[in-house]
Amino acid sequence: MTDRPFKQYDYLDDPAAIYRASFATIRAEAELSKVPADVEKIVVRMIHASGDVGLVPDVEAHPLLVSTARDALNSGRPIFTDAEMIASGVTRRRLPAGNEVRCLLRDPRVAELAKEWRTTRSAAAVSLWGEDLEGAVVAIGNAPTALFALLELISDGGPKPAAILGIPVGFVGSAESKLALVQHPEQIPYLVVHGRRGGSALCAAALNALAREDEL
Amino acid sequence: MTDRPFKQYDYLDDPAAIYRASFATIRAEAELSKVPADVEKIVVRMIHASGDVGLVPDVEAHPLLVSTARDALNSGRPIFTDAEMIASGVTRRRLPAGNEVRCLLRDPRVAELAKEWRTTRSAAAVSLWGEDLEGAVVAIGNAPTALFALLELISDGGPKPAAILGIPVGFVGSAESKLALVQHPEQIPYLVVHGRRGGSALCAAALNALAREDEL
Repeated sequence: MTDRPFKQYDYLDDPAAIYRASFATIRAEAELSKVPADVEKIVVRMIHASGDVGLVPDVEAHPLLVSTARDALNSGRPIFTDAEMIASGVTRRRLPAGNEVRCLLRDPRVAELAKEWRTTRSAAAVSLWGEDLEGAVVAIGNAPTALFALLELISDGGPKPAAILGIPVGFVGSAESKLALVQHPEQIPYLVVHGRRGGSALCAAALNALAREDEL
Repeated sequence: MTDRPFKQYDYLDDPAAIYRASFATIRAEAELSKVPADVEKIVVRMIHASGDVGLVPDVEAHPLLVSTARDALNSGRPIFTDAEMIASGVTRRRLPAGNEVRCLLRDPRVAELAKEWRTTRSAAAVSLWGEDLEGAVVAIGNAPTALFALLELISDGGPKPAAILGIPVGFVGSAESKLALVQHPEQIPYLVVHGRRGGSALCAAALNALAREDEL
């Protein structure tokens, strides 16, 4: 059996102690007093995944987000996402009902549709999510075009998810797509990180916090 | 065949145009004048992945980082990483020699070693990277303990990678592990994002920028 390398540096290496110390530091430093109680753990976990306590003021959640998304997950509904990294970042043992996490970006039909529609593969993939999207949880953490496409699909009378995490990242359309989600007439319960920040790590962290009340 | 939903919002949806507009905005807004020429595209891509132009002053690269890491990748050396999300985030078509991306976190020996050594699975996995680590590219984007463990393994006379991306995230040990990398006596070419920020999205972005000079 391999030996552990000589411990040359002084650092915490007990996994549970690291988590506890991290969450304690976040709670000591982040201004969480205005965050609704049931959203607090989601914000803390997103800060944990990004190392950035400055996220707090940009997070906005619909009042029914946590309860609706948890009900959907507890009843076994799938999670749809726009990026393989997010699917990879979901901690499977935290999911309450062995929920499927589906990303269709690599579906062979996607490239063809994207070309035909002159849009991104991320946006085209949304139209392939199909009827299972009804009552599911959506987690968009990469492409603003995917979030716009989802809202357009819903406006067109397509299947309605139970909850939408709108955390795409970037400099083109990201902030606008989150505003469109918050202002969408259907008012499907949402969580957004307003502005340009977002991405797969933040989005997976939000999903992992939603999946289970317990932090460890 | 499915129809594209009615385009209700006004947004850019041509993939190449989105990339170009994103990179142009980043270059207009980020203070990149002090970033070495060969590191500039890496910083731009990390900003692109996080939506945060404020990263710039925290990025530090060894002068030989880009040339050494590119040589290693061009000659087919593997990439070792501490998180499945990073492996999932590497754009395979950007890799110059079909390089393998290896994450051993789910190796059945890891949980056992971590328990025996009383450390994290991320740190234990580093000791299983084996002799292929010599001359490879390492990308740590999650666990500070993995970066500390790697430096300890190298100090113990273990295999030496060609280059190390040190981009772990968090509130416990993250900043310290990056300082330890920069100050390590072996001076293996490194890239770090100092402080608490880091994570799999930033780390995968750095790898994708290193893999290929071309931005699109």
